[in-house]
Amino acid sequence: MFLNAVFAAASLLAAVCHVDALWPLPRSLSEGTSALRLSYGFHITLPPDIASPPLDLIEAVARTQAYLFTDNLGRLVVGRGASDVSAFETAPYLPELTLSLAPGSTVLSITAEAQKPLGERDEAYTLTVPSNGSAASITATSTLGLFRGLTTFGQLWYEYDGTIYAINTPLEVEDSPAYPYRGLLLDTARNYFPVSDLLRQLDAMSMVKINQFHWHVVDSQSFALQIPGYEELAEYGAYSPQMIYSASDVVEIVSYAGARGIDVLVEIDTPGHTAAIGDAHPDFVACNLARPWADYAAEPPAGQLRMANKTVAEWTAGLFSAVAEMFPSTIVSTGGDEVNTYCYQEDPETQAILKASDSTLEEALNTFVMGTHGALLKAGKTPAVWEEMVLDYNLTLSNETLVLVWISSEDVQAVAEKGFRVIHAASNYFYLDCGAGEWIGDDPSGNSWCDPFKTWQYTYTFDPLANLTTEQYPLIMGGQQNLWTEQSSPSNLDPIVWPRAASSAEVFWSGAGGNLTAALPRLHDVSFRMQQRGINSIPLQPLWAVQDFAVVLDAHV
Amino acid sequence: MFLNAVFAAASLLAAVCHVDALWPLPRSLSEGTSALRLSYGFHITLPPDIASPPLDLIEAVARTQAYLFTDNLGRLVVGRGASDVSAFETAPYLPELTLSLAPGSTVLSITAEAQKPLGERDEAYTLTVPSNGSAASITATSTLGLFRGLTTFGQLWYEYDGTIYAINTPLEVEDSPAYPYRGLLLDTARNYFPVSDLLRQLDAMSMVKINQFHWHVVDSQSFALQIPGYEELAEYGAYSPQMIYSASDVVEIVSYAGARGIDVLVEIDTPGHTAAIGDAHPDFVACNLARPWADYAAEPPAGQLRMANKTVAEWTAGLFSAVAEMFPSTIVSTGGDEVNTYCYQEDPETQAILKASDSTLEEALNTFVMGTHGALLKAGKTPAVWEEMVLDYNLTLSNETLVLVWISSEDVQAVAEKGFRVIHAASNYFYLDCGAGEWIGDDPSGNSWCDPFKTWQYTYTFDPLANLTTEQYPLIMGGQQNLWTEQSSPSNLDPIVWPRAASSAEVFWSGAGGNLTAALPRLHDVSFRMQQRGINSIPLQPLWAVQDFAVVLDAHV
Repeated sequence: MFLNAVFAAASLLAAVCHVDALWPLPRSLSEGTSALRLSYGFHITLPPDIASPPLDLIEAVARTQAYLFTDNLGRLVVGRGASDVSAFETAPYLPELTLSLAPGSTVLSITAEAQKPLGERDEAYTLTVPSNGSAASITATSTLGLFRGLTTFGQLWYEYDGTIYAINTPLEVEDSPAYPYRGLLLDTARNYFPVSDLLRQLDAMSMVKINQFHWHVVDSQSFALQIPGYEELAEYGAYSPQMIYSASDVVEIVSYAGARGIDVLVEIDTPGHTAAIGDAHPDFVACNLARPWADYAAEPPAGQLRMANKTVAEWTAGLFSAVAEMFPSTIVSTGGDEVNTYCYQEDPETQAILKASDSTLEEALNTFVMGTHGALLKAGKTPAVWEEMVLDYNLTLSNETLVLVWISSEDVQAVAEKGFRVIHAASNYFYLDCGAGEWIGDDPSGNSWCDPFKTWQYTYTFDPLANLTTEQYPLIMGGQQNLWTEQSSPSNLDPIVWPRAASSAEVFWSGAGGNLTAALPRLHDVSFRMQQRGINSIPLQPLWAVQDFAVVLDAHV
Repeated sequence: MFLNAVFAAASLLAAVCHVDALWPLPRSLSEGTSALRLSYGFHITLPPDIASPPLDLIEAVARTQAYLFTDNLGRLVVGRGASDVSAFETAPYLPELTLSLAPGSTVLSITAEAQKPLGERDEAYTLTVPSNGSAASITATSTLGLFRGLTTFGQLWYEYDGTIYAINTPLEVEDSPAYPYRGLLLDTARNYFPVSDLLRQLDAMSMVKINQFHWHVVDSQSFALQIPGYEELAEYGAYSPQMIYSASDVVEIVSYAGARGIDVLVEIDTPGHTAAIGDAHPDFVACNLARPWADYAAEPPAGQLRMANKTVAEWTAGLFSAVAEMFPSTIVSTGGDEVNTYCYQEDPETQAILKASDSTLEEALNTFVMGTHGALLKAGKTPAVWEEMVLDYNLTLSNETLVLVWISSEDVQAVAEKGFRVIHAASNYFYLDCGAGEWIGDDPSGNSWCDPFKTWQYTYTFDPLANLTTEQYPLIMGGQQNLWTEQSSPSNLDPIVWPRAASSAEVFWSGAGGNLTAALPRLHDVSFRMQQRGINSIPLQPLWAVQDFAVVLDAHV
């Protein structure tokens, strides 16, 4: 009775109902309108010609199989799938999904594939789901491709009254990402997040094929990373002994990420944003906790490594060598944003060194960065930096350096003109923390510096290639959304990030120009499926709009 | 080693450390700087001269006693209390807190006191905590006053290494609220919230002495309230059979609230915002689901009760009689916001009725509202309405009607000039949902209509008496923060509301003019104590700023 009544009201809208929840949208997709049921005996078959399948592939298959029967996502229409019964009750059963690697493929783990250099990550796959009850199949030339295919396969299914079913078969997907780098930055220095929160973000990231976790692990507020040989940094710089990422935590996080097709790019921001290093090594830090802080730093507390000091520079290079050993990724960021020159001008020790060596601050910075980057290059890593390192200073950086643009998307052109590879991370499109009010000071009318809130819609309209020449296009590696955590903690992590961070995930997988109106119902599905998996993703609209309407509700509808 | 290092850095700042976490700030407070430990045998003694103490008072005492030993809130300073050891390790133990009612006090339950009419709620109490180990005491003239005193007492205590201690004794508090109405509105119609989420909000509300839960339970999107005799409304109008507040749920919520000193004001918004009534009674609703919706409603879906229809008007009055029976509060809201006149102009039935009776729309509205208000008055209730009912229409409302100002705080003056009592709820100060982006439409640059985000600081500076004459001051009953849930669900409820909703709680308890700089560290304490009690309250600053600095960090500090 309940359902019938609502159906009557909703029947007018049936024509606009969406039929699938794939996110990011595959680059090539052909789908039918036939229903298909998942057999109770459904199973996924590993590639038959691999003698010893990688453990993380075996686990990914097991996870996929489990999610198929535990997601229990009711379709986001009135009745949550009751109207599909007539379509699926006589539908064939899908007995099997077969995975296969193309002949001649080198068999590595998902982890090893995900941790390859940017240009070498093979994420392509094809997925075929017949509507007649024949086995579905995923083929790829790497285990990472197979894993991406499994993720797509997992998004096809809804549940109603115990039946797991799809409604868009036969389906053919041929897919690979538009950009090799699709990331999410989480700052664990302004506020601390337990390992479990990070693992949950990795689960969510992998659901939308994000492949890069940019871990902004330390900053001036705290230094929570336990680095072998440099344990004093966390011992003195963490918020508390309980708020430390131990070396074994790092192993767990990197491993969990890798198994989900995610590489972990760690950032040790230098030479700015390093007051927390001063907790263990006060002599290494200029303007340490200096006040008024606003003269010395963009955000309290002030404190920057005495980069002109040879001991400090060598120590920092050694630190990066140690960090490079902890993280298998080929990319490590040395940071480099917001270096405050006044801090160094007012630091007698720095001024004495510069005078003695007849050097400029820029020359000292170059020597310092050559030291840290040299350590990384020696360890086989590609350094990444924030945009100031190439736009504000004339440093002798390798052209292989990855440059993250954060201040404004308008700066991308200048970075590309210098010939550097670009990661889009600009505050005006990709900052998840904007719009939550100013946290510094007692000005009651203060708003966040990067107001307004960046809606998923706004991020979704980003064009990664805007204002670039076709010659510059290959420099664009992809992009990431960023959560800076001045006002975040485990209490609000998931709701701030999800489902919004899925927005850039689609832009950089599927390419620019996606249709907002068509994306909305798919993104509803992403959010609700995340909730089913224990991620506190938020609703983008009232449930009425989600399940009764499922279209963009502009004033003309 | 860890702690010592950080202490060194923090010692400069010791002078600015806060010493207590009382929120809202008592109207009269005298406190010392002596430490006091809570005895392991500490107990709270009920008023000795009450033969049979109310059950909810007994339970409140038990809860207070439990929280004292389970909050385990480390003081928000570096070391989280380690620096207090020298102060408390030789401090006296507090053995007992005695409660007493002034001679001649009528003994009612907390619930009964909280549910009294606005002017009759006696929340005053005095609290004395000697520093010498003598018993502490709370005296009041009502159980509700005792309960408020228990809440204050519970905020005095920190925990370090197993010791529960206070650092601000001897303490004398003489307290009572500046305004009788301190509320929180939650909309459970745009998205549904399980009962457990509501109970958790009530716990949080009681921690900051909010005494009114304004339950915006139904709206055009859904009708989840099961009303005896009107069960069809939820049966057809709820999102699903699982998303219904049953009559017994209401009993539980009202009882849970009452025991925590909170009255539940239910709102059945009429005649606008009623599309969901059309699910059960399509004939009762004009422009039901009409499109384009923006012509007919402020928000989709369109639909308003055919108020000119006598059958509908009488049915609605009967509905309010039934609702009045469900809720013991003396206040019930009939809503009345955003009535769309075009909807009625375009409704042939309404036009025919108006023509036949030679009535204007305003006259029909007056008859309709007199019917609903008449039903409430007959049931002994005070009607509450949104501001349009007195500012946009010339209705014959009783001057006892409570008027909630929502559009703008600038409208308060006009409402007061008409002689009505005012509840502050204006969007420009009190809307918790502002700033999260536009949810309607596909305009990627759309922001929320009431941008920007309302920070706790901004709300805190609100002056309830601004632009009013002293003669009008008695009309101001208090105010409330409001969460409209277009983009909220259980996933983000706590973080959106807390600790921000504590801001108005202090304004309306302690009075206007509070000092932002002094409030910040106390509000940190509120947020962290809420987290200890399972409420996902968010951090207002990086933990560094909270525990290492604990002052407002403006650019000059």
